Amino acid sequence: MLRAIYPGSFDPVTYGHLDIIRRSCKIVDDLIVGVLNNKAKMPLFSVEERVKMLEDVTKEFGNARIVPFDGLLVDFASRMEAGLVIRGLRAITDFEYELQMSQTNHKLEPNVETMFLTTGIEYSYLSSTTVREIAAFGGDLSQFVPEAVAEELKKKMNDKRRV
Amino acid sequence: MLRAIYPGSFDPVTYGHLDIIRRSCKIVDDLIVGVLNNKAKMPLFSVEERVKMLEDVTKEFGNARIVPFDGLLVDFASRMEAGLVIRGLRAITDFEYELQMSQTNHKLEPNVETMFLTTGIEYSYLSSTTVREIAAFGGDLSQFVPEAVAEELKKKMNDKRRV
Amino acid sequence: MLRAIYPGSFDPVTYGHLDIIRRSCKIVDDLIVGVLNNKAKMPLFSVEERVKMLEDVTKEFGNARIVPFDGLLVDFASRMEAGLVIRGLRAITDFEYELQMSQTNHKLEPNVETMFLTTGIEYSYLSSTTVREIAAFGGDLSQFVPEAVAEELKKKMNDKRRV
Amino acid sequence: MLRAIYPGSFDPVTYGHLDIIRRSCKIVDDLIVGVLNNKAKMPLFSVEERVKMLEDVTKEFGNARIVPFDGLLVDFASRMEAGLVIRGLRAITDFEYELQMSQTNHKLEPNVETMFLTTGIEYSYLSSTTVREIAAFGGDLSQFVPEAVAEELKKKMNDKRRV
Amino acid sequence: MLRAIYPGSFDPVTYGHLDIIRRSCKIVDDLIVGVLNNKAKMPLFSVEERVKMLEDVTKEFGNARIVPFDGLLVDFASRMEAGLVIRGLRAITDFEYELQMSQTNHKLEPNVETMFLTTGIEYSYLSSTTVREIAAFGGDLSQFVPEAVAEELKKKMNDKRRV
Amino acid sequence: MLRAIYPGSFDPVTYGHLDIIRRSCKIVDDLIVGVLNNKAKMPLFSVEERVKMLEDVTKEFGNARIVPFDGLLVDFASRMEAGLVIRGLRAITDFEYELQMSQTNHKLEPNVETMFLTTGIEYSYLSSTTVREIAAFGGDLSQFVPEAVAEELKKKMNDKRRV
Repeated sequence: MLRAIYPGSFDPVTYGHLDIIRRSCKIVDDLIVGVLNNKAKMPLFSVEERVKMLEDVTKEFGNARIVPFDGLLVDFASRMEAGLVIRGLRAITDFEYELQMSQTNHKLEPNVETMFLTTGIEYSYLSSTTVREIAAFGGDLSQFVPEAVAEELKKKMNDKRRV
Repeated sequence: MLRAIYPGSFDPVTYGHLDIIRRSCKIVDDLIVGVLNNKAKMPLFSVEERVKMLEDVTKEFGNARIVPFDGLLVDFASRMEAGLVIRGLRAITDFEYELQMSQTNHKLEPNVETMFLTTGIEYSYLSSTTVREIAAFGGDLSQFVPEAVAEELKKKMNDKRRV
Repeated sequence: MLRAIYPGSFDPVTYGHLDIIRRSCKIVDDLIVGVLNNKAKMPLFSVEERVKMLEDVTKEFGNARIVPFDGLLVDFASRMEAGLVIRGLRAITDFEYELQMSQTNHKLEPNVETMFLTTGIEYSYLSSTTVREIAAFGGDLSQFVPEAVAEELKKKMNDKRRV
Repeated sequence: MLRAIYPGSFDPVTYGHLDIIRRSCKIVDDLIVGVLNNKAKMPLFSVEERVKMLEDVTKEFGNARIVPFDGLLVDFASRMEAGLVIRGLRAITDFEYELQMSQTNHKLEPNVETMFLTTGIEYSYLSSTTVREIAAFGGDLSQFVPEAVAEELKKKMNDKRRV
Repeated sequence: MLRAIYPGSFDPVTYGHLDIIRRSCKIVDDLIVGVLNNKAKMPLFSVEERVKMLEDVTKEFGNARIVPFDGLLVDFASRMEAGLVIRGLRAITDFEYELQMSQTNHKLEPNVETMFLTTGIEYSYLSSTTVREIAAFGGDLSQFVPEAVAEELKKKMNDKRRV
Repeated sequence: MLRAIYPGSFDPVTYGHLDIIRRSCKIVDDLIVGVLNNKAKMPLFSVEERVKMLEDVTKEFGNARIVPFDGLLVDFASRMEAGLVIRGLRAITDFEYELQMSQTNHKLEPNVETMFLTTGIEYSYLSSTTVREIAAFGGDLSQFVPEAVAEELKKKMNDKRRV
């Protein structure tokens, strides 16, 4: 049985992430979507909100489950007994960072392998940062995130304005 | 009549920006230099100061006008009835970000087209960030920004030291 | 009146090229598609065949015309009285070559300006080289080139096999 | 059962290729090393020689088998009933080409997925081209290819000198 | 006599930095390791701690000495009467930034030359940022920094947790 | 005494090469400009012509000498008792190739170190290939190569046309 981890911040999940999850679920038997709980980065959505949104939009895939984590990725992989990490590649700058991280992780834990999927071209321009910026100015989100996520973004932005 | 927007932070305007403005003014009929009023980024110069400096150093071009904006670039372009956005490209990392932004903007508003000019080689190393750093340590700015801008930078740095 | 040259080998024209031509025709008044007659490169299609195919697939745009050329691009631009060259950018390796060429051309002829459009994401993976390779192995070309061009490719490949 | 194809020219196989094969064999159940028989490229070793060398150096892995092919990769994958292609990534220029090829292949055959492994750092500088150049000048090959391959390279170079 | 400056933050020094220092000491007669005292960046270690750690791990090289500095690098180089700056290159994103800085420095002070060494492949994935992250989660540091530095990192992390 | 090799094809030498030679001569005591005699590449100028042109344009530097070589660079360096190789970097694609070569050379001969100078911005767009192309079409060469080299290029092109 092939088990893999697809880690990320997913703040929020975009159609680009969903494309990687959908394709990974066809390759591996058990896909763990690892939601990084990085408190230092001050995410827009809490880790609970991000797990909830991911569960909603991935339930159709059957073999994906959502698990929050903090600490080192290799420690999370060992704990989950997963020998494979999957990462999406959109662009060159991604690639350099990912190369560095996969080599560092390999040094820390030689039994964890990293594989890359290139993000589908129709989503290659997408990032959660861009999505948050468009939401902040009230732009149309329908081409970037599932409808339920767009709703959550609008609510969050309204909450922030009220504060 | 071809109208275009050249957007940026211009904190402050450099000889590199002026090179793009001068060359754009030869191509388009009406050039709107859009000054981004991004409060989150805590600029060194206020948007009013940046507009004023740009007006001073671009008045010789005749068909350039300076307009501050906030919000999404595509909304600003629609408001100004401009179908073209012009961006300067200095380097690879620029290129990836610009590619991503132009594709996102195209998704948000298919009627706005983005075109790129490569920054003249004599200015390719220049950025406003570098200029601010050199100014902070009292370095010679004459090769990077017009004299009037160098004066404003010195004043601003003196003000900051006094605080 | 804004006149521009869009130069290339077009061996053969792809949907990626057509995307740049269509968008350029909305920006400039008169678009000259310059077909490079580079004998050293041993093209699959003769320059006459490439001009003919381009004329067929661009006639709907109204303000595009197809002109073959050899020699230096800046000399061709001067001869056509065009002050602007338009180039498509797909990727980083493109970008470095294009940057080098635009700077060399600017040194040779400071009155010729180069502007770049990024190829639409749905065509960013496309190149004439890839199209020729797929055609050589009888692959389906319908997503890469217009039908008339696909027909010409099939004929050309059959001719080559007979030889 | 997860079956994957690792395609390449392998002219000749290097320690970099072996690193990818070894790690792929731990992830997939059945690995087909596809040896491209590209006559136009005039390889140093015939496809039979390349298959033979690969069989010698991969027999320890158990679940790898060597299969020559020509034509389009997606057709080969369909014929072998493999839904996954594995590619090694060494560098940025690799990445752009690989991105383009994986997107083209996805267009030609949406059921074939491409995944990437980054070549281990200790082999990231290695290419078959470099190996052939070093061999041509009689340099020491022991850090780049298995001993049996080094022997074949020496013989081949001696044969070429005699001609 | 050839004197050179190898500037950096060294927060903390890694095996990658030591590789550059060791190789530079074989090329130049007098190597000044310049420790940037950038207060705005809020380093983990004080400049005094960073100088101390560097002195410990470089004393074996004989011709290296550690000197803290703030302000512009070219001013520091002039003050030290050094005509050469040495920088390590790991990756493309490094390269672009380094190119920009070396050109800016050349404009500010034409008598200071910048030369680059590529970081040895076994350390190419390493950065002080990664080292600090691994330390924060209690990961094993023995492959990334000298033992004395690993000890200091552990102490510092314990101090931070107590606060 | 610091001795270094600056290797290349120099087919022909450009102002970009001269910039690297001039700056290297200020850093090292003895600079050997190594002219690669690669027969497979079919150079425009013979190795004797390239050595002669380099001697003419570098005699002012005093500590540069021109030496032709073939075979592996590390063998040439050992033969000349030079522990340092100097290479110019213009662009990203350069960088990746250079990184690969310097790491291969380090594997072949750990005592040979490679250092890089970035080509001066005013020459960053220049390559011998571009120079040969411009010469082939009779373009003005005065900004790219010394006058004596421009004369040789014109003669060579006239000879080729006569054949």
